[in-house]
Amino acid sequence: MIFNGYNEGLVESIRGWLKEDVGSGDVTTSVTIPFGHESKGIIHAKTDGVIAGIPVAQLVFEVVDPTLVFTARVQDGEAVAKGTVLIEVEGSTHSILTGERLALNLLQRLSGIATRTRTYVDALEGHAVRLVDTRKTTPGHRMLEKYAVRMGGGANHRFGLYDAVMIKDNHIKGAGGITQAVNRARANIPHTMTIEVETENMDQVEEALACGADIIMLDNMHPELMKQAVRRIKSVSPHVIVEASGNVSLDTLQGIAESGVDVISVGRLTYSFESMDISLDLNAKKGR
Amino acid sequence: MIFNGYNEGLVESIRGWLKEDVGSGDVTTSVTIPFGHESKGIIHAKTDGVIAGIPVAQLVFEVVDPTLVFTARVQDGEAVAKGTVLIEVEGSTHSILTGERLALNLLQRLSGIATRTRTYVDALEGHAVRLVDTRKTTPGHRMLEKYAVRMGGGANHRFGLYDAVMIKDNHIKGAGGITQAVNRARANIPHTMTIEVETENMDQVEEALACGADIIMLDNMHPELMKQAVRRIKSVSPHVIVEASGNVSLDTLQGIAESGVDVISVGRLTYSFESMDISLDLNAKKGR
Amino acid sequence: MIFNGYNEGLVESIRGWLKEDVGSGDVTTSVTIPFGHESKGIIHAKTDGVIAGIPVAQLVFEVVDPTLVFTARVQDGEAVAKGTVLIEVEGSTHSILTGERLALNLLQRLSGIATRTRTYVDALEGHAVRLVDTRKTTPGHRMLEKYAVRMGGGANHRFGLYDAVMIKDNHIKGAGGITQAVNRARANIPHTMTIEVETENMDQVEEALACGADIIMLDNMHPELMKQAVRRIKSVSPHVIVEASGNVSLDTLQGIAESGVDVISVGRLTYSFESMDISLDLNAKKGR
Amino acid sequence: MIFNGYNEGLVESIRGWLKEDVGSGDVTTSVTIPFGHESKGIIHAKTDGVIAGIPVAQLVFEVVDPTLVFTARVQDGEAVAKGTVLIEVEGSTHSILTGERLALNLLQRLSGIATRTRTYVDALEGHAVRLVDTRKTTPGHRMLEKYAVRMGGGANHRFGLYDAVMIKDNHIKGAGGITQAVNRARANIPHTMTIEVETENMDQVEEALACGADIIMLDNMHPELMKQAVRRIKSVSPHVIVEASGNVSLDTLQGIAESGVDVISVGRLTYSFESMDISLDLNAKKGR
Amino acid sequence: MIFNGYNEGLVESIRGWLKEDVGSGDVTTSVTIPFGHESKGIIHAKTDGVIAGIPVAQLVFEVVDPTLVFTARVQDGEAVAKGTVLIEVEGSTHSILTGERLALNLLQRLSGIATRTRTYVDALEGHAVRLVDTRKTTPGHRMLEKYAVRMGGGANHRFGLYDAVMIKDNHIKGAGGITQAVNRARANIPHTMTIEVETENMDQVEEALACGADIIMLDNMHPELMKQAVRRIKSVSPHVIVEASGNVSLDTLQGIAESGVDVISVGRLTYSFESMDISLDLNAKKGR
Amino acid sequence: MIFNGYNEGLVESIRGWLKEDVGSGDVTTSVTIPFGHESKGIIHAKTDGVIAGIPVAQLVFEVVDPTLVFTARVQDGEAVAKGTVLIEVEGSTHSILTGERLALNLLQRLSGIATRTRTYVDALEGHAVRLVDTRKTTPGHRMLEKYAVRMGGGANHRFGLYDAVMIKDNHIKGAGGITQAVNRARANIPHTMTIEVETENMDQVEEALACGADIIMLDNMHPELMKQAVRRIKSVSPHVIVEASGNVSLDTLQGIAESGVDVISVGRLTYSFESMDISLDLNAKKGR
Repeated sequence: MIFNGYNEGLVESIRGWLKEDVGSGDVTTSVTIPFGHESKGIIHAKTDGVIAGIPVAQLVFEVVDPTLVFTARVQDGEAVAKGTVLIEVEGSTHSILTGERLALNLLQRLSGIATRTRTYVDALEGHAVRLVDTRKTTPGHRMLEKYAVRMGGGANHRFGLYDAVMIKDNHIKGAGGITQAVNRARANIPHTMTIEVETENMDQVEEALACGADIIMLDNMHPELMKQAVRRIKSVSPHVIVEASGNVSLDTLQGIAESGVDVISVGRLTYSFESMDISLDLNAKKGR
Repeated sequence: MIFNGYNEGLVESIRGWLKEDVGSGDVTTSVTIPFGHESKGIIHAKTDGVIAGIPVAQLVFEVVDPTLVFTARVQDGEAVAKGTVLIEVEGSTHSILTGERLALNLLQRLSGIATRTRTYVDALEGHAVRLVDTRKTTPGHRMLEKYAVRMGGGANHRFGLYDAVMIKDNHIKGAGGITQAVNRARANIPHTMTIEVETENMDQVEEALACGADIIMLDNMHPELMKQAVRRIKSVSPHVIVEASGNVSLDTLQGIAESGVDVISVGRLTYSFESMDISLDLNAKKGR
Repeated sequence: MIFNGYNEGLVESIRGWLKEDVGSGDVTTSVTIPFGHESKGIIHAKTDGVIAGIPVAQLVFEVVDPTLVFTARVQDGEAVAKGTVLIEVEGSTHSILTGERLALNLLQRLSGIATRTRTYVDALEGHAVRLVDTRKTTPGHRMLEKYAVRMGGGANHRFGLYDAVMIKDNHIKGAGGITQAVNRARANIPHTMTIEVETENMDQVEEALACGADIIMLDNMHPELMKQAVRRIKSVSPHVIVEASGNVSLDTLQGIAESGVDVISVGRLTYSFESMDISLDLNAKKGR
Repeated sequence: MIFNGYNEGLVESIRGWLKEDVGSGDVTTSVTIPFGHESKGIIHAKTDGVIAGIPVAQLVFEVVDPTLVFTARVQDGEAVAKGTVLIEVEGSTHSILTGERLALNLLQRLSGIATRTRTYVDALEGHAVRLVDTRKTTPGHRMLEKYAVRMGGGANHRFGLYDAVMIKDNHIKGAGGITQAVNRARANIPHTMTIEVETENMDQVEEALACGADIIMLDNMHPELMKQAVRRIKSVSPHVIVEASGNVSLDTLQGIAESGVDVISVGRLTYSFESMDISLDLNAKKGR
Repeated sequence: MIFNGYNEGLVESIRGWLKEDVGSGDVTTSVTIPFGHESKGIIHAKTDGVIAGIPVAQLVFEVVDPTLVFTARVQDGEAVAKGTVLIEVEGSTHSILTGERLALNLLQRLSGIATRTRTYVDALEGHAVRLVDTRKTTPGHRMLEKYAVRMGGGANHRFGLYDAVMIKDNHIKGAGGITQAVNRARANIPHTMTIEVETENMDQVEEALACGADIIMLDNMHPELMKQAVRRIKSVSPHVIVEASGNVSLDTLQGIAESGVDVISVGRLTYSFESMDISLDLNAKKGR
Repeated sequence: MIFNGYNEGLVESIRGWLKEDVGSGDVTTSVTIPFGHESKGIIHAKTDGVIAGIPVAQLVFEVVDPTLVFTARVQDGEAVAKGTVLIEVEGSTHSILTGERLALNLLQRLSGIATRTRTYVDALEGHAVRLVDTRKTTPGHRMLEKYAVRMGGGANHRFGLYDAVMIKDNHIKGAGGITQAVNRARANIPHTMTIEVETENMDQVEEALACGADIIMLDNMHPELMKQAVRRIKSVSPHVIVEASGNVSLDTLQGIAESGVDVISVGRLTYSFESMDISLDLNAKKGR
C-alpha cells in the first residue's frame, strides 16, 4: 500500500500502537456493550482538506478484527470538503471502538500533512521544481509521513541514513574538506548510490562541483546567490541536481523557485502540523 | 525517568526509531569520518520555549553508544530563551551523528508540546482548575507526550483504554442508556477503577449523577450551561469530579474555567503542534 | 475474549508458550504419525470443578492450525461434574497433538483457580461483600488468572502497578507519612485514578480518611477492629471503599465479612492452587 | 544449566513479566517516593521450606536496575527455617519496589516446587530410583520449574517435544502399532536421540522390548505388575530404562519404588503447588 | 512442514529475511509495475540436482501475499534434470517479485546441500552406515539445512547444544577426565538423553566404554584403528553406537565405512557448498 | 563496526543465532565443566586465506558474556598463512564454549567469501574496473557478506530492494517498455536515487541511454558487444555507469574487463563458497 507492496513493518507498528492504547484491555467497551453487538461506523471530515491514510486506517481495522467490512468512500490524495464521508466500517461494535482512536489519530495526522503539502505545491504552480520533505519526521512514522507528502503532491528526499550520501558541515569538518569527503565516499559506496553535498557559499559550490558531487544543496542562501549558483553548476555539469534548503516557508517559496533550482526541501511539511479534524459516528445495527 | 522508573518500553521504542533512520547503516558518516574521531555536540534552542525531553535525548545517545558523555544544561520544565545551551554530548563523532536526528526530532516535538501547554496553563492562572490532555496523541508516543504536558504544567487524563472507564455516546447507545452502562461497568470493573460519563445536556447530567458516576464530563456545552451543571452536581455529590471538554481553545478557556469545572481537557495540546526549533552543532575534538 | 476484545497480547504469549514446548519440532509426532492423518480430540473433566479457559484453549488450537474445528461443549463459569465433555477438536492429528499439552496446562490451571474462587464466593453467600484477587499471580499469566477469578464468581483488584495508586507501608515511609503520600499522589495522577491506602491501625485509618483516600485497606486487622474502622469510615465519608486484606482463608472469611467491609482481597486465589484434572482422548478419523 | 550459562531467554521472559506488572508505569512509587531515595530490602522466609530461585530474583533486580547491589544469604537447594533472611538488595527505592512483586512471585513459586519435591525425594530415601518431573509445567516457566525440581533433589524428564521421542497411546494408534512407531522413529531421528514407549500391559511391554525401545514407561500399572515388567525387561535388555508413571502420590510412592523401576515421574511436582511464603521488608537508607 | 508440524519459527525467520531485502520498500516494482498487474512465475532448474526447499519457497510466497496460488511440480528429495519446472506461482506481479529473490536464495542453497548429500549417500551404497551432518550449519538456517540433508538421503546429528550430550576434548580437560565427565553428566541430565564421547585413541575408547557412554565418536582415526575400535566396542557393549568423524571427504568415505562404524558425520555437507542454479521467469497475465 | 556504526541489528541476529544453537541450554558444558572454570581460547587458521569477521566474532563473545577478554591478532582484510593465530579470548570456559560454534561458523563463512573475492580482485589487477557483489546472499547475512566482499577488496552493489531502482526484464514487461519504466520511476523516486536498466542488446542500450538511465547493465553479452556498447554509451553520456553481469567466472573475468565496463557484478562471490577452515583450541587456566 505505502509502496503498493509488502507492509509487514507497518502491520507490526500498528500492533504496537494498538497495544499502547488498549493495554490490558478496553474496559469500557467490554463491560458496557454486549458481546455480539454490531454497528456501522461513519468516518467523515469536519474541515476541508486533502486526505491521506485511508489504506492505513483499513489496515488498523483489519489488524483489530479481520471480519470488519471496510469501505473507502474517497481516495488518498483527494481534496474533500467539510462533511464528506471518507470511510464506512461495519461489524462488531467492540472491534470498531477498539480501533477507532488509532485509525483517527493516524488519518488526522497524515491528512494534516497532505493538506499542508498541497498548499506548498499549489504555491509552486508554474515552476518546474520539485517540492520534497526531509528526515524531520515523527519517530516511527517516517514512511507514512513521506507517503502523506506524496499524496499532497510533493516528492520525497532520501528515506534515511542508509539510501544516499548527504555530506553536511559536520562530515566536511570530520573528513578534512569537501573533496576528501566526496572522494572517500565515492570509493566506498555502491556505484548505485548518489552523493549530495551541502554548501553555504560559492567556494563550496565550486569545490563540490569539481570533485563530482551528484547533487549540490544550497543551504540558507539568498535567492540571488542561488540563481548564480544554479547558473554556474548547470553550465559546468548539466546533470548535477541543485537543491535549495533551509527555513523555507510559504512566503519565501516562490523567490527560491525562481532561482532555477531543481528541488526545494521543506522540513516544515512534517515537523509541525495541524491535524485535520476527522471523526467517527456510530450507528447501532443490531445484536448478533 | 518518565515516571522515574523502569523504562524498558521506551528503550525498545528508541531502538525501533533508530532502526527506522539508520536502516542498513549510516553510509555518509561511516565513509567520510575516520573511525575513532571524537567531537563535542552542543544542542541549543533556536527559539524561546519550555523544554521537555532531555532525559529522552539522553536515553537515545545511551542506546546508540553507552560511552558517550551526556551533560544536561537545563531541566525539563524550564522555560528557556533562544540561544540557551540545553545539552552537551561528547565522544565518538560517529555515535553523535547517528543519534542526532532522532534526539532532535524527539526534543523538538516534546518541547513544542510543553511550550503550548504552558501557554494554556498561564491563561488559567488564578483559576482552581486542572488542565489535562486526551488520548489524541501520536501513535507510539503517548507516554512521552503526556509527560511533556506535565512538564508544561498540565496534568494527564487516563493513559489508555485500560485504566479508567469512560462512557461516551457510543457506549450509551450500545448499553441502552447511561444507567445501564454505569451499572454494568460498576459490577464488572475493579473497585479501584473510576467511571466517567460523557454528557451533552442536563438530563444526561442528572442520570449520570443518579447512578453514581465518579466523574461527569460536560461535552461541548455552553459555559452558562456548564455553570448550572457544576452547581447541580456539587450540591448533590460534592466528591464527583466535573470535567469540561470539546473544542477548547485559548480563546474559550477562561470562560470555561469560570463555570467552576474541576478539569478542562484539551485535545489540541498534543494533536497539532509547532515543533520547537532546536539544533546540534558539532566541535571536532581529536582523533583517537 | 478475555475482555471480549482485541487479544493480540494473548496470541503472542501463546506463540511463546508453544515455542517453549515444541522448540525445534515435535519429533515424536512428526516421525510416527503419517502426514494427513486426522482425528477428533475429546477434552473432558476428570474431577468436578468450575471451568475457565475454554476460549483460551480455542486460541491455542487456532494458533497451531487455523483449520482445526473447535467446538465448546460447556461455557466458562459453568460448574461441571467429573466426566463432562468440555471441548471437541477435529482435524490434523499432528496439530491436535502439538497443541494438546499447552491447551491442557492452561485449562487445568485456570479451572483450578475458578474452582477455588467459587468455594470462597459460596462461603460469602448472603454477605454484601466483593471477593477480589491480588497481584500475586503467575508471571505472564495475570490477565488470564484474573479472568479465571471472575469466572469463579470473584472480582478483580487493580491489574498492575499502572492503573491505580496503592500506598503501602514502604511508600508511607518513603514519603514521610500518609498525608504527604496521598497529597503528592493526588497532585500528580490523572483525575480518573483512585488512591488506596494500606492501614494497620485506627490512627492510620483516621489519617487516610482525613487526607481523602478513595479506598482504605485494613491490613491484617482483627475483625472487631475492622468493624470499628468500617463504622468510623462510613460515618465520615460514605463513598470511601473499605477493603480487608491479609492472610484471608476459608476459615476467617465469614468473620471478616461480618465486619461490614466492602471488599475482601485474597492472595491465595492465585498464588497456590490445585490444577483441575482435565485430559484429552484422541479418536483417529481417517487419513486424508 | 539455567544459571551456569547463557540466559538470554530468561532475561527476555523477565522483561515481559515486568511489562505485565509495570505497564505504563508504577504510578504509586513514582509519585510518592522522591527520586534518589535509597533503601535496603530484606527478603526472608515466612515458613520453613527449600529455596529455589535466588539467581532468578537476582536477574529480576538486575534487569530493573543494574546498579542495585544484590547479596544472596542462602543458596538454592538449601532447606531454611521460618525467618531466615534469603536476600538483601540495596539501592534505589524505586527500583526495589518495581522489581519486588515479580521477584517474590517467582521465588515463592519455585521454592514451593522445591519444597514439595524434597518431600517426595525424602520419601524415596534408600531406594535406587530417580524422581523426575513431567511436561505439566506452567506455560512460560518450564525451564525454571524443572530447575526448581532439581534444587529439591529431583531430576528432569525431557525438556519438551524436541529432545526425545515419547511414543504414547495416541502415537501408537496413529502409527498402527508400537513396532511400526518405533521403527519409523528410529529411521528418522538423530542417532543421539532415545525412544521411550508408554505401555499399559505386559503385551505392550513385550512389543516395546522386542522392537528396541530405549526406555519403557509403565503407565498406571499396579506395583505387582510393575515388578513383573521390570524383571522381564531387565532379564532381556539390562540397559533399557524402566519408568513408572501415572497419578503418583506420596502415599503410592514407596510401593512403586519397591517394584524396582529406575525412574518415577510425578506430574504433581509442578502442576499443583503451594507457594512458599516469602516477603520483602524495606529499610529506608537515605536520600541520594 | 520441516517436521510436518507447527512452523512459527520458520515464518518468523522468513519475515526477518524479507525485511532484510525489502527494507523500506521495493522501489523498482512499486514505481514501474501498475498496481493490480498479474503474472505467472515459473521456477525451473538450470542444472541437474536434488531438490530441497519447495515448501519453504511456498511459505515465502504465502508470507508475502496469501492470495498467490502456488503449485509445486516436483517434491523435495527428487533428482531433477536441467530445465525441469519446479514451481508455478500465480497472482500479483508485485508480490511475486517481492518474494522472488528470497525464495530463490533459499531453494538454491537447500538444493545445493541436498545435491551434495546425495553424492555422498550414493558413494556409501551397499554399506550399512548412516551419513549424518554436524552443527557446522549457517547461523539461522540450521533446521532448514538439516532438512535438506535428509532430503538428500542423509540423516541428522543432534540439533543443537540442547538435545544431547557430546563430550569433546575441551570438556574432558575441564572435567578432569572422560570418566568424571560422563559420571557428572549421567547424574544431571534427563534419563531420556544420551551421552556421546569424542575419542582420539584406544585408551580413550576403553575409558568411554568402561564408564558407559552411549555413543563413542572416533575422531580423525586411521580406518585400521577404527576397525579395531569398532570390534572392541561391539564385543563389550553391542548397543553402543560408533561414529566416525573428522575431515571426511568423498575419497575417504568408503574406507571409513568399511571399518564397520554405525555413523559417519560430515561437516562439509553444510559448511561449504555450491548453490544449485535455479531461476524464475515471469509471464504477464493481465491487469486486474 | 560493519559500517563503523550502530550495530543493533547485528546484535539481534547474533542473539537469534545463539538461541538456535543453545536452545534450552548447553547441557554438555553445564554438567561437565565446573562453574567458575576459566580458559584461554586460541582461534587460528588451518589454511591460507583472507580474514573477515573478527569484529563479528568479538560481538558474539560479547553477547554471550561481556566479561570475556577478546584480543584480535589480525585485522579483517589481512591475508594470513595456515597456522596464524587470529584471536585470543579469555575468561569463563562455559561462555567460550557456548559462543565457540557460532563465532567459528561466522568467521569461516565470511573469510571464505573474502578469500574468493580476493582471487577475483587479483585477477583484475591493472584494469580500472570495480568488482561488485549481488543480492544473491544468504538470507539473514546480507550485510555481513557484503562486508566480507569489501574485506576481500571488492565493492558492493545495492544493499536491497530499497536503495536503488534496478529495472530488469520483468519490470520492462510490466511497465510496457524501458522508456515507460524509467519515466515512471524518475517521477516517483527521491531525486537522491539512481536508476539502473538491465539490457540484453544494443536496441535496449540505445533506449536506456535515450531516456536517461543512470546506470546501464549489459547482461550476458559477448565481450565484443560489450566493448561496442561501452563506446556508444560513453560517447553520448560520459557520466553514465556501465555494468557487466551474468555468469561471470574467473575465466571470463579479464575478457569482460577489457571491454571497458566500469563495474563487473559477480553472484558467485556469495552464493556458493568454500568456508575457510578455522578452529578454536582451549587452554584451561584455573578454577575461579
